[in-house]
Amino acid sequence: MSRFANSVTNLRSSEIRDLMSLATAPNIISFAGGMPGNELFPLETIDQIYQSLTEKEKQIALQYGPTTGLPSLLESLSGYLEKKGLPVKTNRLIITTGAVQAIHILAKAFIDPKDPIVVETPSFIGALSAFRAYEANLISIPLKEDGMDTLQLKKKLDSTLPAPKFLYYTPNFHNPAGIIYSPKVKQEIVEILRDREIPIIEDDVYSDLYFYEEDLSKMRLIKAEDPEGIDVCYIGSFSKILGPGLRLGWMLAPEEIYQKCELIKQTIDACSPSISQVIADKFIRRGDVYNYTASVRQEYKKRGLAMIEALETSLPPYVTFKKPRGGFYTWLQLPEGCDATAILKRSIEKGVVFVTGKTFDPDAIKNNSMRVSFCNTDVETIQKGVPLIAEAIQEVCG
Amino acid sequence: MSRFANSVTNLRSSEIRDLMSLATAPNIISFAGGMPGNELFPLETIDQIYQSLTEKEKQIALQYGPTTGLPSLLESLSGYLEKKGLPVKTNRLIITTGAVQAIHILAKAFIDPKDPIVVETPSFIGALSAFRAYEANLISIPLKEDGMDTLQLKKKLDSTLPAPKFLYYTPNFHNPAGIIYSPKVKQEIVEILRDREIPIIEDDVYSDLYFYEEDLSKMRLIKAEDPEGIDVCYIGSFSKILGPGLRLGWMLAPEEIYQKCELIKQTIDACSPSISQVIADKFIRRGDVYNYTASVRQEYKKRGLAMIEALETSLPPYVTFKKPRGGFYTWLQLPEGCDATAILKRSIEKGVVFVTGKTFDPDAIKNNSMRVSFCNTDVETIQKGVPLIAEAIQEVCG
Repeated sequence: MSRFANSVTNLRSSEIRDLMSLATAPNIISFAGGMPGNELFPLETIDQIYQSLTEKEKQIALQYGPTTGLPSLLESLSGYLEKKGLPVKTNRLIITTGAVQAIHILAKAFIDPKDPIVVETPSFIGALSAFRAYEANLISIPLKEDGMDTLQLKKKLDSTLPAPKFLYYTPNFHNPAGIIYSPKVKQEIVEILRDREIPIIEDDVYSDLYFYEEDLSKMRLIKAEDPEGIDVCYIGSFSKILGPGLRLGWMLAPEEIYQKCELIKQTIDACSPSISQVIADKFIRRGDVYNYTASVRQEYKKRGLAMIEALETSLPPYVTFKKPRGGFYTWLQLPEGCDATAILKRSIEKGVVFVTGKTFDPDAIKNNSMRVSFCNTDVETIQKGVPLIAEAIQEVCG
Repeated sequence: MSRFANSVTNLRSSEIRDLMSLATAPNIISFAGGMPGNELFPLETIDQIYQSLTEKEKQIALQYGPTTGLPSLLESLSGYLEKKGLPVKTNRLIITTGAVQAIHILAKAFIDPKDPIVVETPSFIGALSAFRAYEANLISIPLKEDGMDTLQLKKKLDSTLPAPKFLYYTPNFHNPAGIIYSPKVKQEIVEILRDREIPIIEDDVYSDLYFYEEDLSKMRLIKAEDPEGIDVCYIGSFSKILGPGLRLGWMLAPEEIYQKCELIKQTIDACSPSISQVIADKFIRRGDVYNYTASVRQEYKKRGLAMIEALETSLPPYVTFKKPRGGFYTWLQLPEGCDATAILKRSIEKGVVFVTGKTFDPDAIKNNSMRVSFCNTDVETIQKGVPLIAEAIQEVCG
């Protein structure tokens, strides 16, 4: 018998660490990471913000703050979220130490060992890890081009007892699948879950990184509707719109869930970093967040389009992908039986890395797919690296 | 049946929040907080550090880092800990989001529902909350003037099955009891636990804040001995030696425990704030940490001595306390039957707050004691506030 807790004994070995070290290995072209490019951070703005801080603000930055967040940031962030149509007045906002912490808190709030929860196939590895850390029974629903397969969802729910504790999904520029959910699929999810009183966790960390304004209307969030009779917990992050090193995210949730989450957060880290909160607050109040996201949006679009072009030019015809319209990722679909791990090995020999599909499979099996990021490499590197991946695919799959 | 997880359903309501809001209420003299005084933060040093950062360092500050911590900080912190005699070469160091997170991670690593663990009476409320969040069975051992009552410890262990998963203790300037463990008691704890293969969590966030150098020899840590045949997890923090708003702590642990903790931390917040880590790294490398702790040590000593003097002058003779020799707290012992909550109510009417003993009791019952902090009030305020507390005591207890 292990001396460790059951949930930890069952915890899988360190896929995320392997992924991180791959993503940041020197002398390799990395399409593996989910981090913004270092060269894109708004360093001058941060300098200006630091210079503008009063003595009192610096003291606040070094002191403990309330568990749910610094009041000034809660106020400015509410304004920011209200512009997205989110119901900040009828819900409660809590600052978290990154979006990952928000997911972890909700996992802890809801999951007893063996409890079923609904996730997408493929799904964000950070969320899967958090759910596994509480020994959830992952009910996986395949993703189609416009979102979760709702027929499958209905079928699985009809055959799953007890009812799942929640459904977790990422509406916009899905990690890893890159897709945007259609309004129709979101509507269907709400209808299916409402009758069953299953809450929704809506993880929306990429929605500011759209390439085309015309997509905004269909990107409308379930939380923006806040449909009656169903609890929706909305999660966001400063990681993609300022910098992940601040470790700042948030959750907008109904009162009862918020109360539990506050209690849990107290036991996890007491409060999120005040220094980050002071900076993020100014970043919103000065309007920097709007200018900065407008600028990185253009840069990621350039990279995304370069990625599409390079893939279209060099991929063998049996590899398919949906063209990204925002976010960080393209998701390549290989023929049945093709093994992304074999391709990765070959690819590493050529000096290029990406992430294998299996990593994002809740059942950790399906491996005829791969995630290729375009967030952390410039256009030239994309043009240089993608043909090498295509070569590796051809060498392995013919 | 609640829709929330069992552990959360059982989680107590927000004592910590109440404590925090009491501690920071305006127009009140607060001896309630466990935070450094705002006026003591090294703002000029932080300014110098910020000015000295290169573009590359600022990029690192805004980017994700490794889950276990930025390599540069792990190196400089190792040097700092080595000076304390800690075995950094034969153990693994992990940066955490405050010491609270280190405690939470260990709670998650070891505790299944109903598992016994050993804690002190009184004990740090943040640790108790984390252990309760995993439904631990808290086996409480009374504190004496020189540490845990080891006869009681032995007795409780002999009658507790299964064996406790770990023992949690705070060796130096105990929160809330203010005491220093004697070498004898520490030695006895090691002997008692070694045979039973029970790990020790040594929570040492106040040890730099000693008033008297002569105490240093008896403050030697169990982790510094790292006795064979027993796993010791050492926890520390930048909160008291730089600023809690950075949310930075650490854990020094044997390899096997470190491995589990890394996996858990990945699911909690992926990594601790890089921005804080970059600053803390410089703070050590420039030698600021040594100058700063030397200076606050003097200031806290002034406050501690003022607290002792004010208490000796104004307390009724039936209230006893051990004179603090460092740290943040004095712990007042009231006669059996005296209710600290009634005293607190009376005290608030007079414009002064402290924390009731019950808060720190693992069984949440024993209330004839109170924690009076001297960390966050200047000498003048101490002289003004303490007599009001003494009045309140007399009005309630006669």
